[in-house]
Amino acid sequence: MKAFMDKDFLLQTETAQKLFHEQAEHLPIIDYHCHLNPKEIAEDHRFSSITELWLGGDHYKWRAMRSNGVDEKYITGNASDWEKFQKWAETMPYCMRNPLYHWTHLELRTAFGINKLLNASTAREIFDECNEKLKQPDFSARGLMKRYNVEVVCTTDDPADTLEYHQAYTAEIVNCKSSNRKCTKVLPAWRPDKAMAVENPAAYKAYIEKLGETAGRNISTYDELIDVLQQRHDFFASQGCRLSDHGINEFYAEDFTETEIKQIFQKVLEGKQPTADEVNKFRSALLLEFARQDAKAGWTQQFHYGPMRNNNTRMFRQLGPDTGYDSIGTFNTAQSMSRFLDKLDSEGMLAKTILYCINPADNEMVATMLGNFQEGPTPGKIQFGSGWWFNDQLDGMERQMNALSVLGLLSRFVGMLTDSRSFLSYPRHEYFRRCLCNLIGQDVEDGKLPAEEMPFIEQMVRDISYYNAKRYFNFPND
Amino acid sequence: MKAFMDKDFLLQTETAQKLFHEQAEHLPIIDYHCHLNPKEIAEDHRFSSITELWLGGDHYKWRAMRSNGVDEKYITGNASDWEKFQKWAETMPYCMRNPLYHWTHLELRTAFGINKLLNASTAREIFDECNEKLKQPDFSARGLMKRYNVEVVCTTDDPADTLEYHQAYTAEIVNCKSSNRKCTKVLPAWRPDKAMAVENPAAYKAYIEKLGETAGRNISTYDELIDVLQQRHDFFASQGCRLSDHGINEFYAEDFTETEIKQIFQKVLEGKQPTADEVNKFRSALLLEFARQDAKAGWTQQFHYGPMRNNNTRMFRQLGPDTGYDSIGTFNTAQSMSRFLDKLDSEGMLAKTILYCINPADNEMVATMLGNFQEGPTPGKIQFGSGWWFNDQLDGMERQMNALSVLGLLSRFVGMLTDSRSFLSYPRHEYFRRCLCNLIGQDVEDGKLPAEEMPFIEQMVRDISYYNAKRYFNFPND
Amino acid sequence: MKAFMDKDFLLQTETAQKLFHEQAEHLPIIDYHCHLNPKEIAEDHRFSSITELWLGGDHYKWRAMRSNGVDEKYITGNASDWEKFQKWAETMPYCMRNPLYHWTHLELRTAFGINKLLNASTAREIFDECNEKLKQPDFSARGLMKRYNVEVVCTTDDPADTLEYHQAYTAEIVNCKSSNRKCTKVLPAWRPDKAMAVENPAAYKAYIEKLGETAGRNISTYDELIDVLQQRHDFFASQGCRLSDHGINEFYAEDFTETEIKQIFQKVLEGKQPTADEVNKFRSALLLEFARQDAKAGWTQQFHYGPMRNNNTRMFRQLGPDTGYDSIGTFNTAQSMSRFLDKLDSEGMLAKTILYCINPADNEMVATMLGNFQEGPTPGKIQFGSGWWFNDQLDGMERQMNALSVLGLLSRFVGMLTDSRSFLSYPRHEYFRRCLCNLIGQDVEDGKLPAEEMPFIEQMVRDISYYNAKRYFNFPND
Repeated sequence: MKAFMDKDFLLQTETAQKLFHEQAEHLPIIDYHCHLNPKEIAEDHRFSSITELWLGGDHYKWRAMRSNGVDEKYITGNASDWEKFQKWAETMPYCMRNPLYHWTHLELRTAFGINKLLNASTAREIFDECNEKLKQPDFSARGLMKRYNVEVVCTTDDPADTLEYHQAYTAEIVNCKSSNRKCTKVLPAWRPDKAMAVENPAAYKAYIEKLGETAGRNISTYDELIDVLQQRHDFFASQGCRLSDHGINEFYAEDFTETEIKQIFQKVLEGKQPTADEVNKFRSALLLEFARQDAKAGWTQQFHYGPMRNNNTRMFRQLGPDTGYDSIGTFNTAQSMSRFLDKLDSEGMLAKTILYCINPADNEMVATMLGNFQEGPTPGKIQFGSGWWFNDQLDGMERQMNALSVLGLLSRFVGMLTDSRSFLSYPRHEYFRRCLCNLIGQDVEDGKLPAEEMPFIEQMVRDISYYNAKRYFNFPND
Repeated sequence: MKAFMDKDFLLQTETAQKLFHEQAEHLPIIDYHCHLNPKEIAEDHRFSSITELWLGGDHYKWRAMRSNGVDEKYITGNASDWEKFQKWAETMPYCMRNPLYHWTHLELRTAFGINKLLNASTAREIFDECNEKLKQPDFSARGLMKRYNVEVVCTTDDPADTLEYHQAYTAEIVNCKSSNRKCTKVLPAWRPDKAMAVENPAAYKAYIEKLGETAGRNISTYDELIDVLQQRHDFFASQGCRLSDHGINEFYAEDFTETEIKQIFQKVLEGKQPTADEVNKFRSALLLEFARQDAKAGWTQQFHYGPMRNNNTRMFRQLGPDTGYDSIGTFNTAQSMSRFLDKLDSEGMLAKTILYCINPADNEMVATMLGNFQEGPTPGKIQFGSGWWFNDQLDGMERQMNALSVLGLLSRFVGMLTDSRSFLSYPRHEYFRRCLCNLIGQDVEDGKLPAEEMPFIEQMVRDISYYNAKRYFNFPND
Repeated sequence: MKAFMDKDFLLQTETAQKLFHEQAEHLPIIDYHCHLNPKEIAEDHRFSSITELWLGGDHYKWRAMRSNGVDEKYITGNASDWEKFQKWAETMPYCMRNPLYHWTHLELRTAFGINKLLNASTAREIFDECNEKLKQPDFSARGLMKRYNVEVVCTTDDPADTLEYHQAYTAEIVNCKSSNRKCTKVLPAWRPDKAMAVENPAAYKAYIEKLGETAGRNISTYDELIDVLQQRHDFFASQGCRLSDHGINEFYAEDFTETEIKQIFQKVLEGKQPTADEVNKFRSALLLEFARQDAKAGWTQQFHYGPMRNNNTRMFRQLGPDTGYDSIGTFNTAQSMSRFLDKLDSEGMLAKTILYCINPADNEMVATMLGNFQEGPTPGKIQFGSGWWFNDQLDGMERQMNALSVLGLLSRFVGMLTDSRSFLSYPRHEYFRRCLCNLIGQDVEDGKLPAEEMPFIEQMVRDISYYNAKRYFNFPND
């Protein structure tokens, strides 16, 4: 029997163990998509308690606690830090087989050096020990990034953001290299979802005003909107941005005319509700514009499609979005996805692209969609994104990598990202690398991959863990 | 090489074997959803032959025989009991890798103590031996329930049913406890599908009349229908009913007004065909009413969604429904499911709920839907139902439990049910428990779950096998 | 550690190894669906180089090269044979875990006796050795079929084809038996897709004219079209054809009247564009006619449904269809599939049928659809086709066989086909048989199948590898 989470955790063969420990384990992390708060990085945030760090905004844990019958008071309510932690600790054993069980203990071990199992009886000592350590300077936001050897982080930012915190951080670490310290590069990423959210005219109008303010320009026409977006896009690029990201339910690829889009824009600014058809046309137009701007800039565009958000109206009113009330949708979006990518390809405007699906039933569809638009000279120009959100666990990662392997080229995969709001999520890269090495190691031991090609196999492991992303995104040098 | 179906059948590790034999094997069975005939229980039915018991109504076996090229005469036709059994025995080896191969041999072993393999050459001796045993009193309907240590059975009953057989049985076993015998509790479950089946006005009208008769009231308006359903709901509750069940293709969550629904009801009673839109509105309205009645009564509602029924018109005309001509559908019902549950949650009327999907491609969608509506104080308030119908086999069970594990809390799962028409299906609970113990045992041996937490793991196995259901459904005490 | 691709490749247990080597390995191949060019068979084509044989038309390899960043010049462009081969060899290691890695090395070993691994450094010697061997007479088209012990091949032919090459080949090998040589039987298969492609009136009209020419009749009405199709169908039957094949996105099962169909036909012949509704009606009508002709002739009909073809407009214009720009679609076609099969069953016109799905998320739906229309006396009358196109690899085959096993009868499966354009694809039958033996052998070793029934299990392996197809298709004897 293997010990729980020992050094060969998830590594079921000798080859897998060697691959991980010798090739993957010590490589730096490129976390090219996450939801960390740039302000907390700029200010090198110190966490008041493990409750803030773990339970302050992690809707995975909140969902688990609700599933375990915990009262909302101890989740998002006014219970004390200790009470909330205690409820979480009590819930922990009930999470066995859920990724939270592994994440939590990996984080305890790698960040805090705590090898105990969290449960009701260990709750107090672990709470105290974590809180004690969080007082130390190397448990700050930046301290944690350094601990996990994070080379690059890309946050998720609105075009209307000033990026002032990115600038402040960058200014501060400018001498990082010379001082021989490793400093994480923190770059913005472009997420213009709000610029196409015309379904809510009042909010849209407010957003357009805010965007105009940031840009120092009044936006009163659709053409001005596109101009301002381009101006902000250029600014983001100057700040090192190399990726965009789009959160969509389905792909939008309706036919439209420029005139229609301009009229819809005017109508919405006048506070009138657009029809469902108009919303789809507008989204279709904007999605193309976003894509063209990325293509011209040589960026990578990311599409996260397929979730159903805010399913619980009562709790949405109480807590707002991103509080644990989202789930996996069922959309047949293959045709619109294909049309969208084809339109861009036809006009020579298809940027490097990463497609993330949330429903693993779509894995094979997405893994074959890539092939329709691959072309030299970029290896793996179109990417199947790593297991996203609910799929960010062992089964989800394995299914994504297996689908990509048999229907595309695993060797060209840009690999893992955290997509996280927490500074403690970096062990997910370790988890991913273990999973990757286990799959490949097993194949070698089974005679499905040739041991004679071990140098190439080792290179492939290093590539997927680190080097593919480094080459693919082509982040600016210091 | 492991012997076929030995005592460690399906248990691939030592930990799995220990978990099963020490924790799960001997627990009673709570079979909270099945299609047993209450009359046969009340009358303690004796089976004329193994052919009646096995082949009298089991459409799984009928399908297998048809797939094997057997003439319908030997399936539902007028061939003799022996001839039919013989054809089934000949088909048996051709069922290798189909769950029927396991079910059949498990039933032979656990009910009849026959360890032979069924095939053409053993057919006669097994036929004779089974029939001989079926003459013994402990092979009656109740005898079989006792043999399998069945604590509770919930049948499936129409609101228009009088529940006379439940009453007769209950009256008879009232002294069960005092007499120190174990007697299975047989409770009704509420299945009001017919009350929303307005798509066939003639049949609907007849049904409404029958429902009125049972209730002793004339039903001439929609309000009266709801009143009568409430009255019957109360009566079912008084007879120990704690669950409802709904067989639907998709979820219905259309917008409607009370006025519209009342008009549709009148229109249908007048024998006029409602439009497709009206049918959906009516179903949407009734499904909400059903749900509210369950919420008020503290019951659990079950939704079995997604099949396509009666695909073969020719055979439907010949044999009627439930004869082996149903299959797995492809419906994108996530959004309507979410809207339906959200409406109920918004009005504080979301009862405990079990969602069963028939297409395993929907497993992940359903497993994440739960989380949108979980809340204290009931752990696992919204449940992902065990592998249903076509998924009621090793692969289906594993996929359901794995999806639930990584996307929810397996530990809070209420576990297995037979959903069966046969008194011989109880070994499926054993099968399920073996599968469960194998999954968990494997994880422990692989270092994915901590052996240090074995007491909790053992509790989890007992809970999923028995105690979770006991606590969740809260059946009435004697 | 198992050596790469040794004699027990993919066979993870002793039982699996015995089953493969003793039962499956040496059986002949019945390749009942492929896209080989009959002309190349009739002329016993000699390949100018391994580049022609491997890279002349294999869009799997082209996709892989594009995914690897290779310039189109080296794929379909004007680079030399050696340059193209070199780029493919460089791409090879990047295909690890993709089926191409296995196919390629299996082909090198079984056809050329080359055990080296293909990569940049072995490219030249392998290129030269293959080309040297291709000059030998037993590396001709027929030589390769003989090498792989191919008993029957069914090509894919349009009703307007004269079948002259089939006739030429058959005439030539008529003394095959007497001369004690094994000669592959090459039969036509009926693929009338173009006869329903009214969505493009100009191309349709040209096709109808060509069809009329082949048949020696003018086609000016729908009735004449059906007559001519029947005449060609009879002719194909006389040439040994026993299967049809239909490439469709979704099933078409719209209601229509004869009058409507006749009018649509006239409209299209007049060069007018039919509406989407008319196209669907016409397809629905024709699909039924095709099916009736097959039923009357006692043929087997095959349906390959679900892909999205020609997704890349730019490359379609450059290279045409079947060049690597197709992918897996998401269609909810269960209901129309059911309606279509039911209509035929209702009129007693449901031929033996093979359903192939391209999206593995549909596996379970299809595997249960079969059961709705199975009937004696043909065992496995309705078949779930082997893992198709993108699913023609280990994971795809296993999923198809596992779904068929638990939801139908694996024992009655007609097994593997190549669906290939290449004379080198026959090792896929070996691959399939290894996969089959591995699944069954594992079950025996795990105690899920009884070793006592080994003679039946061995028969089952032989049946699925060869005998089921032989009996099912009932090809004409010489």
